[in-house]
Amino acid sequence: MTLLPKQLLQNASGFPDFGPGEAIALRRMLDIIRTQYEYAGFVPIDTALVERVQVLAAKSEGEIGNQIYGLRLLSPAPDALTDVKDLALRFDHTIPLARFIAANQNALTFPFRRYAIGPVFRGEKPKDGRYRQFIQADIDVVGDGSLDLLYDAEMVAVIAGIFTELAIGPFTTRIGNRKVLQGFLLSVNIPEDKMTSALGIIDKVEKIGKEKVVKMLVEIGVDESAGRSLITLLTDARNTDETMALLKMNSLNSLFAEGVQELESVVKGIRQFGVKESNFCVDLSIARGLDYYTGTVYETRLDTYPELGSIASGGRYEDLASSLTNRKLPGVGISIGVTRLLLRLIKAGLMDASVTTITPVIVTTATGLEKNASIYLEQVMRLRNDGIPAEVYLMARPLGKQMQFADRKGFTLAVITQEENIADGTVVIRNLKTGIQQEVLSERLESTVREMLL
Amino acid sequence: MTLLPKQLLQNASGFPDFGPGEAIALRRMLDIIRTQYEYAGFVPIDTALVERVQVLAAKSEGEIGNQIYGLRLLSPAPDALTDVKDLALRFDHTIPLARFIAANQNALTFPFRRYAIGPVFRGEKPKDGRYRQFIQADIDVVGDGSLDLLYDAEMVAVIAGIFTELAIGPFTTRIGNRKVLQGFLLSVNIPEDKMTSALGIIDKVEKIGKEKVVKMLVEIGVDESAGRSLITLLTDARNTDETMALLKMNSLNSLFAEGVQELESVVKGIRQFGVKESNFCVDLSIARGLDYYTGTVYETRLDTYPELGSIASGGRYEDLASSLTNRKLPGVGISIGVTRLLLRLIKAGLMDASVTTITPVIVTTATGLEKNASIYLEQVMRLRNDGIPAEVYLMARPLGKQMQFADRKGFTLAVITQEENIADGTVVIRNLKTGIQQEVLSERLESTVREMLL
Repeated sequence: MTLLPKQLLQNASGFPDFGPGEAIALRRMLDIIRTQYEYAGFVPIDTALVERVQVLAAKSEGEIGNQIYGLRLLSPAPDALTDVKDLALRFDHTIPLARFIAANQNALTFPFRRYAIGPVFRGEKPKDGRYRQFIQADIDVVGDGSLDLLYDAEMVAVIAGIFTELAIGPFTTRIGNRKVLQGFLLSVNIPEDKMTSALGIIDKVEKIGKEKVVKMLVEIGVDESAGRSLITLLTDARNTDETMALLKMNSLNSLFAEGVQELESVVKGIRQFGVKESNFCVDLSIARGLDYYTGTVYETRLDTYPELGSIASGGRYEDLASSLTNRKLPGVGISIGVTRLLLRLIKAGLMDASVTTITPVIVTTATGLEKNASIYLEQVMRLRNDGIPAEVYLMARPLGKQMQFADRKGFTLAVITQEENIADGTVVIRNLKTGIQQEVLSERLESTVREMLL
Repeated sequence: MTLLPKQLLQNASGFPDFGPGEAIALRRMLDIIRTQYEYAGFVPIDTALVERVQVLAAKSEGEIGNQIYGLRLLSPAPDALTDVKDLALRFDHTIPLARFIAANQNALTFPFRRYAIGPVFRGEKPKDGRYRQFIQADIDVVGDGSLDLLYDAEMVAVIAGIFTELAIGPFTTRIGNRKVLQGFLLSVNIPEDKMTSALGIIDKVEKIGKEKVVKMLVEIGVDESAGRSLITLLTDARNTDETMALLKMNSLNSLFAEGVQELESVVKGIRQFGVKESNFCVDLSIARGLDYYTGTVYETRLDTYPELGSIASGGRYEDLASSLTNRKLPGVGISIGVTRLLLRLIKAGLMDASVTTITPVIVTTATGLEKNASIYLEQVMRLRNDGIPAEVYLMARPLGKQMQFADRKGFTLAVITQEENIADGTVVIRNLKTGIQQEVLSERLESTVREMLL
């Protein structure tokens, strides 16, 4: 039989394979995210990975619309499904949420808190840190008609819970408000139709620097001195209270004033939720340029690894599903780009992907299974039934080979029972990291293993 | 703005939406499956949902080959990726496993135990119990060159652990062996090229009945009396030991004898793993018709809900990746069709999908958030920090409305703090199922909630 060329065995670029080490690290991360989401009252919904093209098109704009993967059947069967041409892979969790709520609005209880953790797909050119399939972990709260600002504050508390648990170093959620930015831009007479471009430019200030941003703002019609004072407002180092005081001193117009008031409520709420001062700040340069946010916007970064960029981001939106239902559904949400974050943390040495076993214990089968299988299988089942995950080695191989296997997979303890142990009714438990071992009566197997795992 | 027609808001057929109730039930099921897989030493790998068409084609046969969804870009961007035409959605977890092992064989430790839980896609006509996207939860152990039969036995122990934990009623894993069946078919001179058809026919005996099976076997060239004695062998009621005794009395040919010996080893191993006699039996009619199994085959059913059909199935295969690598990789695996199982259990009333909250506690905000947010937010954060998942109601609504919300979502306890409680330094905790409530000093919030949740 001819073999497939080797290069075809590698995953397609942008569709990464997670081997056991990465997959175990991924689960650790997802378990923490999910637990924190559930602790805060969010419930899952699982829509399919496939949506109708019409739904995606009704809600998607610009760049993303060009990145949608449609489906086709490779070899149409006689009863081929005629709808396949209208199906495509989702590229975020927001549109499926909008469709689900529009379809089930009468069965849901508002404010509706939901989390969604799973893969999304983008038809982009893959490069470092950009994937074609990646996991997003989103939460949103969606109100019926209105949604109070304390929900915006709670998002920051939930994110703080997650990054505290992940223990990957100090982090800060920067909080901005688009009304403040837009109010300022209106006050310097920037035309409506340039607003989105201006927000996109401001969003880049950290990447391209102040001078370049001013230059680009001037190019779209902002007066140079106004541009400069905007950039000073946005980027000068101040603590949260200083920024708020400065904002309150300048009442430029009603939109600006509304944004400042929102920001103040959100900051107050974040403090009432008990979020540490070191875990958040007001940063007016956060604009989330191309997104559909209308008020609060967020970005979370690791203080000591700013090069990882934004590790969580989101904001408040006026109306989730305007093209799908007449009901007004304002909401606030935040999203963690899990695949990118995990792979960067592993690369930076902040997460370990070297452990390739979940069970800490291997039960070896030193005297062979022909004769003594019942002894070894009883041992492994006793451990499992006692709540201790345990693997058993079931190949007929000498103990030396079995210990090599145990070392390679990274078990903590090996249970070893040789002829003399069988005669004595004992068992040896060896710590593979330290080499220390204990010989105990076999009825003490579970308790000794438990003790040696502490 | 014109709205999208309502029918487009429904999920496409065969791609079911799981609302909060179903999604919570799904997580309960997946958590049990995953825990049992991990307890037994299986580690996850996460390959992408997208594979190369060439890889899928090299390994897929017959019907399934006609059911593959390929990808296309809806609107090719100028830098469109030229490989998209060669990409398709996976239709099982086995081919991605084969590719992953072939690509990473030198980095892996054999026998390699892996689990994979996630969606797969089939371009079939959806109907009751058949979906176009569904979750499969697979385990496989793959050996390098050889793999001992006790691994076949361990699968049955793992499956027994899962269905015991799921607590959806008594279940039996039926164990067959294709060598036994093929040996019998060879002994009645069935030609090689009819073997697969014959196995497919035998696999249907439960569905279509003995008479019809005999008739179909005669049509493909089996002698009628041989067909009848085969069907008697396969379907007569006997316990495991009787079946084994009967098989050992009849040594039809070497293939048959080999299969009988395998079956004997597997049954012995299952008993040594401590699986209850009521949770397994030998059933020679299990053939897994169209699959690539070569020895042991399994199917698990619920004793009291046979109409649910097979809820887990799998078997032993000679060589996982013959078209991808020269290394011989025998393995054994089992797969649970989670989506179908879950939705049928919900429909049959064996699983509850009516609870739409995960957190048991709602903190209400009776006196409003304008004045007293800090009291309520401190309460909810104290509960969460104490390990009690809790939601807080953050809309400015009267307590009556808040209690309606709490009832509708199905919380167990409501924390209520009114003006008089604030004055007294107390808090009321009400059990929403029984109506019983306690008023306690507010420092006793966590301990009382914990107690009332028991």
